[in-house]
Amino acid sequence: MAGKKVAAGIDIGGTNTVFGLVDREGNILAEGLVKTARYPQPEDFTEKVFNEIVSGLSGLEPGTELAGIGIGAPMGNINKGTIEYPAGLPWKGITPLAELFRRLTGIPVIVTNDANAAAVGEMIYGAAKGMKDFVVITLGTGMGSGFVVNGRLVYGNDGFAGELGHTTIKPGYSERECGCGKKGCTETYVSATGLKRTFLKVMANSLEPSRLRKMSFEEIDARIIYEAALKGDKIALKAFEYTGMMLGIKLADVVAHTSPEAIFLFGGLAGAGDLIFEPARRYMEENLLSIYRGKVKLLPSGIEEKNAAVLGASSLVWSELEKK
Amino acid sequence: MAGKKVAAGIDIGGTNTVFGLVDREGNILAEGLVKTARYPQPEDFTEKVFNEIVSGLSGLEPGTELAGIGIGAPMGNINKGTIEYPAGLPWKGITPLAELFRRLTGIPVIVTNDANAAAVGEMIYGAAKGMKDFVVITLGTGMGSGFVVNGRLVYGNDGFAGELGHTTIKPGYSERECGCGKKGCTETYVSATGLKRTFLKVMANSLEPSRLRKMSFEEIDARIIYEAALKGDKIALKAFEYTGMMLGIKLADVVAHTSPEAIFLFGGLAGAGDLIFEPARRYMEENLLSIYRGKVKLLPSGIEEKNAAVLGASSLVWSELEKK
Repeated sequence: MAGKKVAAGIDIGGTNTVFGLVDREGNILAEGLVKTARYPQPEDFTEKVFNEIVSGLSGLEPGTELAGIGIGAPMGNINKGTIEYPAGLPWKGITPLAELFRRLTGIPVIVTNDANAAAVGEMIYGAAKGMKDFVVITLGTGMGSGFVVNGRLVYGNDGFAGELGHTTIKPGYSERECGCGKKGCTETYVSATGLKRTFLKVMANSLEPSRLRKMSFEEIDARIIYEAALKGDKIALKAFEYTGMMLGIKLADVVAHTSPEAIFLFGGLAGAGDLIFEPARRYMEENLLSIYRGKVKLLPSGIEEKNAAVLGASSLVWSELEKK
Repeated sequence: MAGKKVAAGIDIGGTNTVFGLVDREGNILAEGLVKTARYPQPEDFTEKVFNEIVSGLSGLEPGTELAGIGIGAPMGNINKGTIEYPAGLPWKGITPLAELFRRLTGIPVIVTNDANAAAVGEMIYGAAKGMKDFVVITLGTGMGSGFVVNGRLVYGNDGFAGELGHTTIKPGYSERECGCGKKGCTETYVSATGLKRTFLKVMANSLEPSRLRKMSFEEIDARIIYEAALKGDKIALKAFEYTGMMLGIKLADVVAHTSPEAIFLFGGLAGAGDLIFEPARRYMEENLLSIYRGKVKLLPSGIEEKNAAVLGASSLVWSELEKK
């Protein structure tokens, strides 16, 4: 008797790599977590993750078969199965991720960027079901994006489409250094770290009191700013307003490119709710060409945050198998 | 004996409306021109154009049949067959262009924006043959754009995708008013009129002599600036450099969205050759995320300028008929 088939969906982040063993219906049958930064050698990382997957598999119904591995990672390239110069990961240069996994197993391995994986997850299992044109934006340590056009994920000619975080938001007017080597990238404003940089700038300009004035740059993070904002900290509130403005301005540009039905915000910073959604929506509308106004939905993800990229990455396996 | 079928391709511009009767192989068998601004009533305009088409048709082989009409126009909407609030045309509000033509004839009428039509023309008959991911940018009085992703034109959810001219290039830092009602749109810098506005600003800042200091704002146009630049006019050269820089910065953003194989520049300003291509290419590369550098071709259109939109618009008819 042939066993049930599952796909491994892996979401590689700067801090954590999470994975799930997912059946075709999107049920996560097992899951696990590996601390990414503990593995400065990609070979050690893939071996560790693969061992965890095998261990998860052994806990499932006997005979369950691993059909393939889908991976979402920053700067993941679908054409080459690589991740290339990712700013937030421990591995430098080009890492042949698919190849490294294939050395351990003969099954198909698909790599794409994490936001693309989340977009596929949203389309198949989340709030974008039935939508043909939408965008998913991930707001974590960095800013990622996945574009769906005519019902298909946009990979672009070289497999790297959807790097909204590295568009320039104020050409020539921003000194904010980005991990990618450029200056003034949208990610330097619109991300958890962007919020923190903005917070510090607002704090430096302002005379308002704030409990966070006692904390160092390294101690402050997006969650602390969020909690301060909830308690009415004026500097924190202003930092959120500014971050939402920068996001909204960029979203208006996104709409002029591909005219999506909806834009989904996703990841830690999106969890701040109206603190980020309200100004983002307001400035998006203000900056939209009139023909687009009032038409584009700005929504939270329809699936539990940590699972969207895992689900999306796993679903890449099924679509890859169907091609054959 | 059934006659040969032709499609009418119409390219509506602020000054001229040009049309062609085109066979399935892309041969333009007849063509004509109508002065757009002479027809403040869209009903009079469509009647005039239709009469010209009928007249052109009568000159062709007897029995030649008109299969349909394809139209490229600013703010053309494929879903509704309308043009909506076009800044450079004499008709205000929403013009039901397809409906007006259908009143005169029972054949299919398809409307899209002029840059989309040019992109289709480039894909079927021009330099984008065989490309699956590319962008066409039209640089005329205004700035238009057509995106092709996965081998298909991007219309977006509401049929208005591809309004690159109305993205914002310097949010909050530009006072340039745009015909669309916003400020700082890319079109206010990157277009024939944008070049002229930049020229005036450079002239105001500079003490360099220029023959154009004797001319009024209304007398100066992009062609005059182009000719001055060829003769070494320093202000004109600087205006081209600045225009190319603004274009290049925006192109880097375009690449981060859809990662095209090539970007085609098209229309009057693209005819300035290296005066615009060289700085555009340089600033695009400088502003690209490293993974994209050196990969994206910036090219002139592969078909004679006035014909691309006409050919593209006509080809919409064939693809529409094939759908049925």
